[in-house]
Amino acid sequence: MVPDPYSASETPVPAGTIDLRPGRPWVRYYDVAAWRRAWRAAGERPPSDLASPYGLPRLRELLAEHLRRARAVPAGPENVMVTRGTAHGLDLVAAALLRPGDGAGVEDPGYRVAREVFAARGGRVVPCRVDEQGVIPAGLPDGLRVLYTTPAHQYPLGGRLPIPRREMLLGWARRTGATVVEDDYDAEFRYDVAPLPALYGLDPGRVVLLGTLSKSLAPDVGVGWLVAPPDLLHEIARVRRRLNDRTSGPVQEAVSTLLARGDLDRHLRRMRLEYARRRAAIVDVLGDRIRGDSAGLHVYLPLPEPRVAPLVATAATHGVLLDTTTRHHHGPPHEHGLVLGYGSASLPDVRKACTILSTLLDRP
Amino acid sequence: MVPDPYSASETPVPAGTIDLRPGRPWVRYYDVAAWRRAWRAAGERPPSDLASPYGLPRLRELLAEHLRRARAVPAGPENVMVTRGTAHGLDLVAAALLRPGDGAGVEDPGYRVAREVFAARGGRVVPCRVDEQGVIPAGLPDGLRVLYTTPAHQYPLGGRLPIPRREMLLGWARRTGATVVEDDYDAEFRYDVAPLPALYGLDPGRVVLLGTLSKSLAPDVGVGWLVAPPDLLHEIARVRRRLNDRTSGPVQEAVSTLLARGDLDRHLRRMRLEYARRRAAIVDVLGDRIRGDSAGLHVYLPLPEPRVAPLVATAATHGVLLDTTTRHHHGPPHEHGLVLGYGSASLPDVRKACTILSTLLDRP
Repeated sequence: MVPDPYSASETPVPAGTIDLRPGRPWVRYYDVAAWRRAWRAAGERPPSDLASPYGLPRLRELLAEHLRRARAVPAGPENVMVTRGTAHGLDLVAAALLRPGDGAGVEDPGYRVAREVFAARGGRVVPCRVDEQGVIPAGLPDGLRVLYTTPAHQYPLGGRLPIPRREMLLGWARRTGATVVEDDYDAEFRYDVAPLPALYGLDPGRVVLLGTLSKSLAPDVGVGWLVAPPDLLHEIARVRRRLNDRTSGPVQEAVSTLLARGDLDRHLRRMRLEYARRRAAIVDVLGDRIRGDSAGLHVYLPLPEPRVAPLVATAATHGVLLDTTTRHHHGPPHEHGLVLGYGSASLPDVRKACTILSTLLDRP
Repeated sequence: MVPDPYSASETPVPAGTIDLRPGRPWVRYYDVAAWRRAWRAAGERPPSDLASPYGLPRLRELLAEHLRRARAVPAGPENVMVTRGTAHGLDLVAAALLRPGDGAGVEDPGYRVAREVFAARGGRVVPCRVDEQGVIPAGLPDGLRVLYTTPAHQYPLGGRLPIPRREMLLGWARRTGATVVEDDYDAEFRYDVAPLPALYGLDPGRVVLLGTLSKSLAPDVGVGWLVAPPDLLHEIARVRRRLNDRTSGPVQEAVSTLLARGDLDRHLRRMRLEYARRRAAIVDVLGDRIRGDSAGLHVYLPLPEPRVAPLVATAATHGVLLDTTTRHHHGPPHEHGLVLGYGSASLPDVRKACTILSTLLDRP
């Protein structure tokens, strides 16, 4: 089985192997006391027979405050719905907006789960070309009901969508009536560059913003958020009621505690430093070969197509697991190279694996 | 907004009002120490980047053991997947089995969420007639890919499907190739009658069994189970991987603790006694008027159609909230009457509300 990027793996990698595949965050550094306190708080809340499709009011408040502060997103609690994560947010958008055969744009190459989620709700998936800066607005077709995009750090090529492209993208959405689904997953981690405004902040009327704790905290907590204009939020809430879909109450209580006590902020600060060190090690060893290193937990290393598969095979014999752009395409690949993730390998392992990789790359 | 049966409401009913609508369990009796201990256990487990679409191995073992003991279901851990509840289990079955336009049978009258979930996955919803014994196998059409049914206690008419009908139903499934989705939600609560074997136990090859803690413990925990033959379970796991869908790890840990320490069994024993008292109060006051009282948390009270709406309105002026069969039909109603739930009103309130109702029923 090929492990899915973005999603947690099912089994640990063998000892002695260094996993540079993207999609998993580092979960070994965490505040044991804060984590215990959060789940104790969940246990202090009695079991409940009340459930809102919007989520706990307190958590909506805390998330809105977090988004205003961390991402300058103009959101109040009335804009925030508590989800179980990015894929769940995508599914809710799809269930609310897609009718059978509606065009659903996904980045190509891009996050495979978006394609799967849209297709499973009857959407007609339309691959939309990206380059090293991100999605290409000029190439977008008319007739898309939704477009999924990762402007903060394109997955997998690593581009940060420049402001002019953001404006063009929103102009296209206004003109065609499409809703842009902005996956803000990697915006928490950014290196040596100023923040860029979220699409949602530029035009809240045409954008649904999705976020998750899966990368910043741990994939198996199961909490994310969806930010949308109130009308669309109510429509999505109606869908959740019809499908009897909700987010676990005790989990929401635990996450509220982490946010209210500043534990999540402290964790993010620590992880930013840690990931910055790993990213610096990659830049140090692989230098100009890499792209898309200004944010997130992965970089892109373009290569001539014929070199990719042999390199992956050779690296594996040296105990280094690599991912390529190939499987992130929705059709024939037009970008070729490696997607190097540094979420699940320690700093010494990242350095060691990059050194091995550098040696292999230098061979003719 | 009409509150949805099966799902938790969003707001408490006003003080002084007695809510006899079905769909909510009693959550006020719980073992405070056991509940706290369970969530403390969740906090002892470090955040994880590993996640299996099948669920935590320990919880799968515990659920299989619970099902063998409580329901005599021939299931091992290899048959069990941890879900977030009944609606989620239905959605997984739909995502794995339904292609656009496939026939998806639902009971009529029946659980509205089943209809919504099937339709949202592109299924062609086919209402299947039920009577006071449950679904009518002789009336089932060919060409259904799945059939959703509640044999343990039909929702909302309250029938317990007799053995000959169970056999006929499974014969139909074998003949037509349909998969029966057995919602076992009310099987935990049964009064003065012997247990009936689950459909899954009679023919594991043609049945997916769904269960949930939403009724037996609390709706907002967010854990249920899906029991299926291994091949189908693997197919559903593949769908979960593609959609990046999972059940929160800490929640699974908490529920494992409740099961492992016998807390859930103790809670079920207590609640069986409590619900049995409420059901006895209903039988005591309303007597032969009611049907479907041998299991679950609701009974059916048939009435001539013209009497239903005025009765509901008059009861409301006396502070008693009632539900009717009307909104559980998928087309024009063919069963008329009240659906009386006793999950969310105390024993004195159930008695009081039934006395008021009895008086109203006796008026010409």
